[in-house]
Amino acid sequence: MTTSIIAIGDELLIGQVTDTNSGDIARMLNPMGWNVNDVQIIGDNAEEIKRAIDRAFATSDVVLTTGGLGPTKDDITKGTLCRYFGGELKEDAETLENVKEVVRKRGLKLNGLTAAQAIVPTSCRVIQNKVGTAPLMWFERDGKVLVAMPGVPFETRRMFREAVLPQLLEKFHTGIAIGHRTILVTNRTESQLAMDISDWEDSLPPYLHLAYLPKPGLIRLRLDGLHHDSHFINNELDKFKSELIDRLGNDILHDEDLSPQEILLHHLNRLNLTVSTAESCTGGNIAHLITSVPGSSAVFTGGIVAYSNEVKHRILGVKDETLARHGAVSIPTVEEMASGACDAIGTDCAIVTSGIAGPEGGTPEKPVGTVCIAVKTPDATISGTYHFPGDRSRVIDRASTTAIIMLIQELKQAKKTIL
Amino acid sequence: MTTSIIAIGDELLIGQVTDTNSGDIARMLNPMGWNVNDVQIIGDNAEEIKRAIDRAFATSDVVLTTGGLGPTKDDITKGTLCRYFGGELKEDAETLENVKEVVRKRGLKLNGLTAAQAIVPTSCRVIQNKVGTAPLMWFERDGKVLVAMPGVPFETRRMFREAVLPQLLEKFHTGIAIGHRTILVTNRTESQLAMDISDWEDSLPPYLHLAYLPKPGLIRLRLDGLHHDSHFINNELDKFKSELIDRLGNDILHDEDLSPQEILLHHLNRLNLTVSTAESCTGGNIAHLITSVPGSSAVFTGGIVAYSNEVKHRILGVKDETLARHGAVSIPTVEEMASGACDAIGTDCAIVTSGIAGPEGGTPEKPVGTVCIAVKTPDATISGTYHFPGDRSRVIDRASTTAIIMLIQELKQAKKTIL
Repeated sequence: MTTSIIAIGDELLIGQVTDTNSGDIARMLNPMGWNVNDVQIIGDNAEEIKRAIDRAFATSDVVLTTGGLGPTKDDITKGTLCRYFGGELKEDAETLENVKEVVRKRGLKLNGLTAAQAIVPTSCRVIQNKVGTAPLMWFERDGKVLVAMPGVPFETRRMFREAVLPQLLEKFHTGIAIGHRTILVTNRTESQLAMDISDWEDSLPPYLHLAYLPKPGLIRLRLDGLHHDSHFINNELDKFKSELIDRLGNDILHDEDLSPQEILLHHLNRLNLTVSTAESCTGGNIAHLITSVPGSSAVFTGGIVAYSNEVKHRILGVKDETLARHGAVSIPTVEEMASGACDAIGTDCAIVTSGIAGPEGGTPEKPVGTVCIAVKTPDATISGTYHFPGDRSRVIDRASTTAIIMLIQELKQAKKTIL
Repeated sequence: MTTSIIAIGDELLIGQVTDTNSGDIARMLNPMGWNVNDVQIIGDNAEEIKRAIDRAFATSDVVLTTGGLGPTKDDITKGTLCRYFGGELKEDAETLENVKEVVRKRGLKLNGLTAAQAIVPTSCRVIQNKVGTAPLMWFERDGKVLVAMPGVPFETRRMFREAVLPQLLEKFHTGIAIGHRTILVTNRTESQLAMDISDWEDSLPPYLHLAYLPKPGLIRLRLDGLHHDSHFINNELDKFKSELIDRLGNDILHDEDLSPQEILLHHLNRLNLTVSTAESCTGGNIAHLITSVPGSSAVFTGGIVAYSNEVKHRILGVKDETLARHGAVSIPTVEEMASGACDAIGTDCAIVTSGIAGPEGGTPEKPVGTVCIAVKTPDATISGTYHFPGDRSRVIDRASTTAIIMLIQELKQAKKTIL
């Protein structure tokens, strides 16, 4: 079963908004064994919309559109779909009730523009939007389906998962099983890794395919399988995944597609340890990454963003002498910050950064991108100085991920475990 | 001048990676008056790539591809482009030198797979990649251009800005001027705003177009102009923008497309004030947003992520009595956290959150999404309780933005200024 996605909106083409809906939809379709064939991103233009639908129907059974359904004059998707599929635009009583209910829940009053959201093509079946005012519209033609969804990511994610996907699964019955396994590898570059496992990769059967997905600080290896026998393909995927894990040993960070912060929480929970953060150049990003994970409060109790030297000294207890002699970006400073964080917040472990994220602040000895990282566990304090390439946001990202991975590896080593 | 973008990679179609390159490229093309016509996201499949290039050339003068240029076996774009444009794959001496230099700078040794990056189609002109091993390739056909770029966002952003864009501008000379003005509006819903300015919107001349771009906590209004006379279109955009600002008054958050954190830093700098953060449910995200802005260290000295009650008490000085009587998610607690942050970090202002981000932790009185926010300035402490819809990440986003906007509005009011 194949799907095409069309993301509609001028704002997507001038880069003011990034299309995240397509990825969200793909992630939900994937476990069902459905392929996304392609994504087209186009402007709020009736001709472009028609052309994109024609193209999508030429290759796919299901076409999903997002965006262009707002109540304002720049949104023209609804009228265009009505001309495409026929029928006329008419107010739908049930939809109007739903719009009123959504508006009421938000504590607002219904106005004329919002009420107009209930005017829909007679050629569609409406799927009521529980979390927004733009109704979803299901059209059919020659056994194929187009579902028009709103552009607001939260609404699309929720409505696709809860209403659209179940209805698509009911309508279509697909016979091909798709499976994936992802393992996360660290300590190697993409090309080193590719050479190291080249013979293994050559031994893969034709129904298995390996993809390399580098991320800051790690490489995701994704093994995809495609076969009519779901049981067989899952066994094969497990077998080849085990071979890979045996081969890469300690360089395996994890055997599921989790974020470093999720993996860290997994190990902390398992070892019954707590963690705090003391961040200079990463400015709160490590704490943010950790607390983005539901349930993180079980192991994370707090953190300090120590941007100025005074905060490093006053709250984290870094000695004035250390700062004066070695500077804020130094191994002695981050190691003192690590003890300071464990003491001030009262945790077993700490993750610490101090560096120069740029664009200003670099010196010949410590250029932009220089970051000192320390991690503390009940057994040891580990530290290192890194040089990350790129602009401010990239340095912050890389330093954050590297610091989190550093603590994961230290915890795994203490526990003598690969996974 | 029109451009089509093709983003290549299976990982984009299963939602494992989000395509941010297209937006980055569009943002750089835009000020030059270049339109992005459409974006196609396709898999690592030779047939799909050829078809996408055919389509793109049918409507655009310039086709930009990203991705599919890695050294591993799943990346097939280079071979496909060679078959499309003719010529043969051959090692290029200058490219090999560049690859060696990039690898050397990373402190690594050249291996066979990386060296193979220097094998390029004879039908292209190479643009050397200063920050990665995949060379950029410039192809021409019938006066049109295709540039193949890597998929790593940092490499593409940097190389497009520094090398590709200048060379495109040199080759093409375009006569149409495109202009944009963005103003940020707060305190209104999209449909309220649309009704309030409906008559003004109807009065827009045909060469101006208004778009509504809602974001958490604010709406971006973007006025686009298209005309052959650049001077004229800019005057018109300024005139209609002033009308809108007069009309919306204090609901204007800013008159440039900046993030709330950039606007906050602008006001703090202007007023010569410093700020700290004390975050519970937003877990460091506000500090992260502020410190993402270059130069933020001039006004931001530090922050506390106070996830547990103990940290709220011990570091921020929130009274045990307050926590016991009102709970952590309460106005008295966030107001005490605000004073505590100013004292502990030594700043003039503070931004504070405490709430229930979910999915666990809600109660009938304080359901998931309940967030208390306080902001402190030298003149006043303002606070409020909010109920944000959505999942954990959405609650964190909304609470962070709302808190930052709250301080901006308080600073503007103190200064009696609209912008």
